[in-house]
Amino acid sequence: MGYVKWSFDTLDRFCGDVFSAFGFSEEDGNIIKDVLLTADLFGIESHGMQRMVRYHKGIEKGTIHPQEKPEVVFDTPISAVIDGHNGMGQLVSHFAMTKAIEKAKQSGVGIVSVRNSNHYGIAGYYAKMAVDEGLMGFSCTNSEAIMVPTFARKAMLGSNPIAIAMPADPYPFWFDSSTSVVTRGKLEIYNKRGEALPEGWALDENGNPCSEAPRVLKNIVEKNGGGIMPLGGNTEKLGSHKGYGYGMVCELFSSILSQGVFSSSCCTFDDKTGICHGFMAINPAYFGDPDAIRAHLSEFMEELRNAPKAEGAERIYTHGEKEVLAEKERRENGIPVNDGTMVEIGLFGGFCGRDSGIGPAQRAKTTIWN
Amino acid sequence: MGYVKWSFDTLDRFCGDVFSAFGFSEEDGNIIKDVLLTADLFGIESHGMQRMVRYHKGIEKGTIHPQEKPEVVFDTPISAVIDGHNGMGQLVSHFAMTKAIEKAKQSGVGIVSVRNSNHYGIAGYYAKMAVDEGLMGFSCTNSEAIMVPTFARKAMLGSNPIAIAMPADPYPFWFDSSTSVVTRGKLEIYNKRGEALPEGWALDENGNPCSEAPRVLKNIVEKNGGGIMPLGGNTEKLGSHKGYGYGMVCELFSSILSQGVFSSSCCTFDDKTGICHGFMAINPAYFGDPDAIRAHLSEFMEELRNAPKAEGAERIYTHGEKEVLAEKERRENGIPVNDGTMVEIGLFGGFCGRDSGIGPAQRAKTTIWN
Repeated sequence: MGYVKWSFDTLDRFCGDVFSAFGFSEEDGNIIKDVLLTADLFGIESHGMQRMVRYHKGIEKGTIHPQEKPEVVFDTPISAVIDGHNGMGQLVSHFAMTKAIEKAKQSGVGIVSVRNSNHYGIAGYYAKMAVDEGLMGFSCTNSEAIMVPTFARKAMLGSNPIAIAMPADPYPFWFDSSTSVVTRGKLEIYNKRGEALPEGWALDENGNPCSEAPRVLKNIVEKNGGGIMPLGGNTEKLGSHKGYGYGMVCELFSSILSQGVFSSSCCTFDDKTGICHGFMAINPAYFGDPDAIRAHLSEFMEELRNAPKAEGAERIYTHGEKEVLAEKERRENGIPVNDGTMVEIGLFGGFCGRDSGIGPAQRAKTTIWN
Repeated sequence: MGYVKWSFDTLDRFCGDVFSAFGFSEEDGNIIKDVLLTADLFGIESHGMQRMVRYHKGIEKGTIHPQEKPEVVFDTPISAVIDGHNGMGQLVSHFAMTKAIEKAKQSGVGIVSVRNSNHYGIAGYYAKMAVDEGLMGFSCTNSEAIMVPTFARKAMLGSNPIAIAMPADPYPFWFDSSTSVVTRGKLEIYNKRGEALPEGWALDENGNPCSEAPRVLKNIVEKNGGGIMPLGGNTEKLGSHKGYGYGMVCELFSSILSQGVFSSSCCTFDDKTGICHGFMAINPAYFGDPDAIRAHLSEFMEELRNAPKAEGAERIYTHGEKEVLAEKERRENGIPVNDGTMVEIGLFGGFCGRDSGIGPAQRAKTTIWN
């Protein structure tokens, strides 16, 4: 599987064209493409450009309702519940996190729980929105069931990512991860390569450990049982109950507080996915001098990066550091996009026009960015 | 290593005597013993009665200042920072969580960050305080460095437990776990048994995986390097960076927001430990009808317990269920306490009087509760 590197600006224009063709306003298109391209810049391709095909399919199938607007159905100075009315996940979530940030600025904290939304991209995007305003940010989403609880054989929770971020220098603390040990995308990579899955990742239809990627993926699609283990594996010895627990925490802030759809039922409907999110922003100024708090965190993160390294290890990372490095490299050298993704996107038809600068001639090349 | 089972009432009286002898008021002693005995009732012996010796040593050494009172140094309707002035961790924390609960009742949410405290027992006790008032509860604490960050060879974070709980029926969601893969207590159990540590638990002084419990424990005591892996092990393949990330989240709410001592320096002082905590209470009534939200969570937890089980598994637990079962059994059949613990406590001298009903004669028996 080859890939093509595109410049950020080219992809930015291209995404704009695509979302305009989907019928989104320029303002809305800008939000959606910023979420996707931030993932690509951060090195999280699984949640970037290559998701566009899935969104297109969701619109066609009728689970994403692109013209619907989110509605605040419960509101207090520190909290809100939002019904996404099955709109585009990024738009619902941008709206919700903006509300959380406003509340945190005015009242110190804002917690917003969202029901009836759709896939929202990387959890960390919304946590970053808070950090960009000098606040702590929290974001989580439930999703189609893929994680098998400890001692079960059936997937009952989604990959249920949680992201938490806080301002620091020279770059923020930015932690974004699934509460399952890995995401489905990782299984698909092993499947494409024909490699056995590492021990501690997946379970077969009987709830036993399984290293066969095709079998696990087939079972997931056909809902035959099995799936991905929680962070911590499938036994309590390595902490399976902990990953399962953090998956539950994600549900509390998303499907429970909003009284929405649990992961176990997400994506089982014809006219919606039912996906729920949770957002929080916390204002450090409600705990002291925000600059001093920021400096305090920066000091600890530097201490961590400078700690003695394990034999053979080159570097200790703090959370968010890899994404800063990836963004720098990709803004300079271009963003790699799978050939397959570009072909798929080309098949939408009509989106690869002159405006974006991506046409069939470019797609035929292996690299347009040198 | 044998153990003796004591009735709850006997241990309750005994602890009362001990804390009275330590110089605590009856009110304060009641709080401390409730934290400890809740751990014992819940089956978490490592944080119950057997900690009393450590607290005694802390008082003698001068790192715990039993007469100091916590002070609110920053206060808003939704937040507070508390300086524990190196008082008893349970008293500082009970005070702090009570503040968080008051704020959540009045303003919807209360977040309290605490510096200069001491070991506070089980994180979950304080989350349970919120649940007992119909609120969501969050509690975390940093602690002496024992967890080695991904790619490091030196422990820089504590076991850094996080507890999150929420009201539900027939029993709450109650999730309390270290963000390290296991706690030091687990290594000590393997050490006493002379067994090799499971793969994925510990690192030697060079940051390499190590199954030798005596070596790891010696290194921890002498601060030679090495320690316990984060939840997710020591490589990114199984999610080491995720456990490390949750350990950091614990620091954000404890040492960072309070501008206190990081885990990396906790317990390195002569006159204090520097341990920091974080607490949060969230009022579900700020998101809708709290009874409906509670019923919604209860429904999901029941769905999880009733999910298809893995081959050979008897039961799927929801978080907090094991503790409910343990409490029922222990209230009926007594609480097991290690012989060694009782001997150690006996050595305090003078605490095993007639009032508590525990004297040398009882200590000599293998079981007083039938």
